[in-house]
Amino acid sequence: MTALGIIAGGGRLPLAVARSAQEAGRAVFVVGLRGAADEALETFPHAWVSLGEVRKLLTLLRDRHCEDVLFAGRVARPRFADIKTDSKGLLLLPRIVAAARKGDDALLRAIADVLTEEGFRMVGIAEAAPGLLAGEGPLGRIQPDADHCADMDRAVTVVRRLGELDVGQAAIVCDGLVLAVEAAEGTDAMIDRVAQLPETIRGTPSRRRGVLVKALKPLQDGKTDLPVMGVATVKKAAAAGLAGIAVEAGRSLVVDRAAVIAAADASGLFVMGFAPSSRST
Amino acid sequence: MTALGIIAGGGRLPLAVARSAQEAGRAVFVVGLRGAADEALETFPHAWVSLGEVRKLLTLLRDRHCEDVLFAGRVARPRFADIKTDSKGLLLLPRIVAAARKGDDALLRAIADVLTEEGFRMVGIAEAAPGLLAGEGPLGRIQPDADHCADMDRAVTVVRRLGELDVGQAAIVCDGLVLAVEAAEGTDAMIDRVAQLPETIRGTPSRRRGVLVKALKPLQDGKTDLPVMGVATVKKAAAAGLAGIAVEAGRSLVVDRAAVIAAADASGLFVMGFAPSSRST
Repeated sequence: MTALGIIAGGGRLPLAVARSAQEAGRAVFVVGLRGAADEALETFPHAWVSLGEVRKLLTLLRDRHCEDVLFAGRVARPRFADIKTDSKGLLLLPRIVAAARKGDDALLRAIADVLTEEGFRMVGIAEAAPGLLAGEGPLGRIQPDADHCADMDRAVTVVRRLGELDVGQAAIVCDGLVLAVEAAEGTDAMIDRVAQLPETIRGTPSRRRGVLVKALKPLQDGKTDLPVMGVATVKKAAAAGLAGIAVEAGRSLVVDRAAVIAAADASGLFVMGFAPSSRST
Repeated sequence: MTALGIIAGGGRLPLAVARSAQEAGRAVFVVGLRGAADEALETFPHAWVSLGEVRKLLTLLRDRHCEDVLFAGRVARPRFADIKTDSKGLLLLPRIVAAARKGDDALLRAIADVLTEEGFRMVGIAEAAPGLLAGEGPLGRIQPDADHCADMDRAVTVVRRLGELDVGQAAIVCDGLVLAVEAAEGTDAMIDRVAQLPETIRGTPSRRRGVLVKALKPLQDGKTDLPVMGVATVKKAAAAGLAGIAVEAGRSLVVDRAAVIAAADASGLFVMGFAPSSRST
């Protein structure tokens, strides 16, 4: 089997993917995006590129005998004027700029298209590291009650509707009221601002209320940007007084599962995977 | 003609409505919601009530010969345990609590229903103070360009979709990317957080990009919570590097119009009303 090429953006996800694939017996080669990826990736076979160095990226992946390639981790929309490009990157730049104007997903899809045209097979994290996928049901010892389930349903509806517009992946609902919806600021910032809302409309660490839901956008194919839950998500949700976090089973990733469960149990939050079919209206 | 009863929440809107109606020759009676309304309302014939003092509210409006009644201004969702209720309020509390769980609009609609049952006519601000309504086209001297119009269209689509879910009234789009979507935090906080996003994806005061759109939720009947644009909105949008603000013509309010125009012209922003039919997809 050939090596798995991992194009690594920010956050802990690329490392978790590399570790999971390696544990399953697969060789990995990690290409870190300069300015985004964590230096900890240097514990794996690796190289660094800038987002515009497309020829260098292609050459690296070929030299290391990668046929399967995936994206993992956060990629901030670049300032195009500042991108370091090589000849191939320069050729592709107009197409990528045009895609980027439509949203971050469109940008990643455009780069994936280039790799596919060059003969690589784009694979999803779900395929390459299935051990990271969220399953159905509670992960820790805390279970949602009927109110939490109602909030979860409403949040799923909001997230799906927004996803259709390529807006964001997450929303927080408390007692039927939509407290926050994610757009360009990202999930962490969205959770933080719920902690700033009046306590009349949200939960507190001593009386937890409200649910965070993350789900894949319908436009996403699951190869570029699966929703992620990690320890940082749990800690922020705990600080914002939420009762729990629900991600879509089979289409969301749990990074550092044991630590996620420990953090949730310690704070009294539920963390769970909801069935894709059962909670969409 | 009988007096216009104005139930006043927070912000400058109740004062603008009272002034506009008075200038049009109508007697007004302002009932300030304690803890929310501005003390400046005491320059008009007035009284103060708590949100749960429903009998007192009814008695006050009858004594002052109000037949037409409207809501104006922000009403935060109350902490029900803390509401001061009289006998009538106590009777209605279960119904209002049930409504409030569905969202802030449902809460105001429930109170409006009670007033209607008691024989008052709920009127909209559009009817009682039509001078505050936004018209079509630019208000100041700055005009939107083609990019701004494209962002405006996309923001209108997002706001309408959110409105169908009773989530929020506003969104900000920059070069096709949805930067922020309003939920419980309100428009001001939403604008503020755009100023915190990386400058690669937003405008700056020296190179303005992106458009704020506010529009009525389809669920709203226009009697409770019309979108409002005021000087504070313009100043915040200017600080966040936005190119302009668009509100729905005929279904949005402009508070202190002359000052809004002056602030927008001084900062180089466009402020405009968009035609309800022309910009929805």
